[in-house]
Amino acid sequence: MKLVLLSGGSGKRLWPMSNDSRSKQFLKCLVDDKGNKISMLQRVWSQLGNIGLQNDAYICASKAQSEMIEAQVGVVPFIEEPGRRDTFPAIALATTYLIDELGCSDDEVIVVLPIDPMVDDSFFRELKSLDKVLLDSKADIVLMGVKPSEPSSKFGYIKVTDKTRGKWMYVDSFVEKPNSQLAKQLISSGALWNCGVFCFKIEYLKQVLQNKAVPLSYSDLVNSFSSIAKQSFDYEVVEKTKNIAVYPYEGTWKDLGTWETLSTEISSNFVGNGEAIHCVNTHVINELGIPLLAAGLQNTIVVATPDGILVSDKGRSSSIKSIVELYGNRPMFEERIWGSYRVLDFQKASDGAEVLTRCIKLLPGKNISYQKHMRRSEIWTILDGEGEVILDSRIRPIHAGDIVCVNAGQWHAICATGELTFIEVQRGSELIEEDIMRSHLKWEDIIAHCKALAY
Amino acid sequence: MKLVLLSGGSGKRLWPMSNDSRSKQFLKCLVDDKGNKISMLQRVWSQLGNIGLQNDAYICASKAQSEMIEAQVGVVPFIEEPGRRDTFPAIALATTYLIDELGCSDDEVIVVLPIDPMVDDSFFRELKSLDKVLLDSKADIVLMGVKPSEPSSKFGYIKVTDKTRGKWMYVDSFVEKPNSQLAKQLISSGALWNCGVFCFKIEYLKQVLQNKAVPLSYSDLVNSFSSIAKQSFDYEVVEKTKNIAVYPYEGTWKDLGTWETLSTEISSNFVGNGEAIHCVNTHVINELGIPLLAAGLQNTIVVATPDGILVSDKGRSSSIKSIVELYGNRPMFEERIWGSYRVLDFQKASDGAEVLTRCIKLLPGKNISYQKHMRRSEIWTILDGEGEVILDSRIRPIHAGDIVCVNAGQWHAICATGELTFIEVQRGSELIEEDIMRSHLKWEDIIAHCKALAY
Repeated sequence: MKLVLLSGGSGKRLWPMSNDSRSKQFLKCLVDDKGNKISMLQRVWSQLGNIGLQNDAYICASKAQSEMIEAQVGVVPFIEEPGRRDTFPAIALATTYLIDELGCSDDEVIVVLPIDPMVDDSFFRELKSLDKVLLDSKADIVLMGVKPSEPSSKFGYIKVTDKTRGKWMYVDSFVEKPNSQLAKQLISSGALWNCGVFCFKIEYLKQVLQNKAVPLSYSDLVNSFSSIAKQSFDYEVVEKTKNIAVYPYEGTWKDLGTWETLSTEISSNFVGNGEAIHCVNTHVINELGIPLLAAGLQNTIVVATPDGILVSDKGRSSSIKSIVELYGNRPMFEERIWGSYRVLDFQKASDGAEVLTRCIKLLPGKNISYQKHMRRSEIWTILDGEGEVILDSRIRPIHAGDIVCVNAGQWHAICATGELTFIEVQRGSELIEEDIMRSHLKWEDIIAHCKALAY
Repeated sequence: MKLVLLSGGSGKRLWPMSNDSRSKQFLKCLVDDKGNKISMLQRVWSQLGNIGLQNDAYICASKAQSEMIEAQVGVVPFIEEPGRRDTFPAIALATTYLIDELGCSDDEVIVVLPIDPMVDDSFFRELKSLDKVLLDSKADIVLMGVKPSEPSSKFGYIKVTDKTRGKWMYVDSFVEKPNSQLAKQLISSGALWNCGVFCFKIEYLKQVLQNKAVPLSYSDLVNSFSSIAKQSFDYEVVEKTKNIAVYPYEGTWKDLGTWETLSTEISSNFVGNGEAIHCVNTHVINELGIPLLAAGLQNTIVVATPDGILVSDKGRSSSIKSIVELYGNRPMFEERIWGSYRVLDFQKASDGAEVLTRCIKLLPGKNISYQKHMRRSEIWTILDGEGEVILDSRIRPIHAGDIVCVNAGQWHAICATGELTFIEVQRGSELIEEDIMRSHLKWEDIIAHCKALAY
């Protein structure tokens, strides 16, 4: 059995903490046994470890997320999505990867699940029994169904037939987001919430892909990924499959996709610099350096990050999704494998140039790759720490108080000995990610190369 | 008749827009006839112009406020308070200034008023008749009393005797912040709100100061200013005076000292980058570069500035005063005569140094004085515009993309040809205002001096 964890969307409902590189599964809002702040990804990955499933788990995510995943859980088996589409293309890709890259056979059972379910350890223990259900039921797909705790209108419901077979059941049909009256009826008939877990044999999915004329070879699928239907696996496969079984899960399951639900898991009512007075059922998260004062609020969530500020009634917090897209495309804070940066200022100069000021922290021993930009200069003012800079193959030590001037067209790299903090001012006609030529050499190799040039 | 406008406190109730240099009277929250944003100071100063009172008006304020006043209303007659105390020391100082510096006689009538009453023009017209009331009533002090619009518990009430004399009345006593039941009784007995307007003859105040052994000479008072009782004029003088008259004012009068009251005068419900959805009776002011989204709020005020973020129920907005003092002493934004600056970042380096990053805008033709610091270096990265820099008496032109490195102990100055924007990184053992030696020469004279040195 192989586990495929899908690392999904950008989590616009959790703006301004989530952005394109920092989706909700990476937000460190939770607390582990030892009181450390952890993300959903870190929680789930450690649960997989507890249950002994880590060795069979593969994370399927976009390249933009790979650095964050490595920064949070280290190097893990990773299937890179060439672009962000939906769960059907992602699951197709993961399946062909398991066949072509790992040599999995047609009989191999795959269990797909979201990367961030907020569940008890027992959830993962039950996952292990899904292949037995697949065998016993002779179903094409087995789902995990969550026993509903309330007649919620936010979820999809799985209606079951009355042919109970021990613990599992056959699926009758699906009802998406029913009103609460219908939800009550569904619950009394034994319906379960769909939590995005799919279990199937590789041979079944191969057949589905063949019928849809989707390439069965991993490399072909990578190349044609952008032309695969941008649809959910539920819509494209599950709802069109007749023989489906479902296994009930009765433990805790929470969808932490909105501030309203996430705030129930945040241990402290006030995180960051500032204070709340006379507030009731209110959560404040302040990641900015400036103080935040909240007074007399009820049932409110306040989140301030370098990306923006949200002030919302908890019940309305999911309605921001539609307007978030209009604001702030450039992430103002990013965690990378080499450290992190925070955007301090962005402006357009009178000559049309764009100017971006960032505070960059490089972790001890880490470096930014040897690179050059054609359309911008960079000026670094070192605030703290020590390191080395390479500029046009010349190496020099740097420390607090130094300035480094990188002109457009100059090859440059910087490495931290201890933690290194600097202010970078980028200035150019157009400040875009694409304006980069990069050498993938390791730091030692760049140094050796530069030293060789010097002789 | 001379008018003395007292430019008072730091307006902690209007945090985070107000700080030590930007008190509430300087906030540009109002809109003039032409749709320009103006401050209370600018509104009042232009009203004084309409009524023909500008030529007799003197602004009494601290040195810290003098630049802001000049930036907003130009060079005006100014009485500098050596320190911030309260209204009694300020009025004593202003009176001795009028005697010693302007040669005002004992018979001269002084009218003292706050610098920021939100009133109709008629308020200032009525001020003109106070000297006649002083004459007719033979009172020692004449007050202006505002006709109450509601039984508010926030103001001081002036009880009047039933001996009405035409429009004015004699004062019976004062009641400070009565509960609303008592306020209703006071209003039905004809009581008025005290709005901080005091009219008296110089000879009366001289007598009061003599009795209190406060110096009558302006220079002596400047020197002993810090030892004068830090008390209000109401407490120290008015409440101890028996023969007081009051002149009623029936027009609009508002105390814009809290966000709740100020928001009633703000024309737009959302100022700045971002959006509000499903909000009722809510005001958002966002002065930060990042977007702010508000959803489902009622009766709330949200203010985000470089100094901090306030999210408050309107009714609770005045309760922040006590906790504001705990946060953010360093102003994060200041408007100066030469332009403005915004603090982007402040941190302590591992070697104990303090590092402050600011974005500075110099207005065309303006310069920062020739100065040096002993305990910090400054690195300027020019983002936009053109100008000249002097470093240790050497002059050089600068433009966008240039870097200027000012070491501790180096004399330096910078002048803008067009508007000049630069990032400044200050680094030193202690970043304090006092670490400065400054030459008060004009730019042309510094240039001439430096050129002479070069030959």
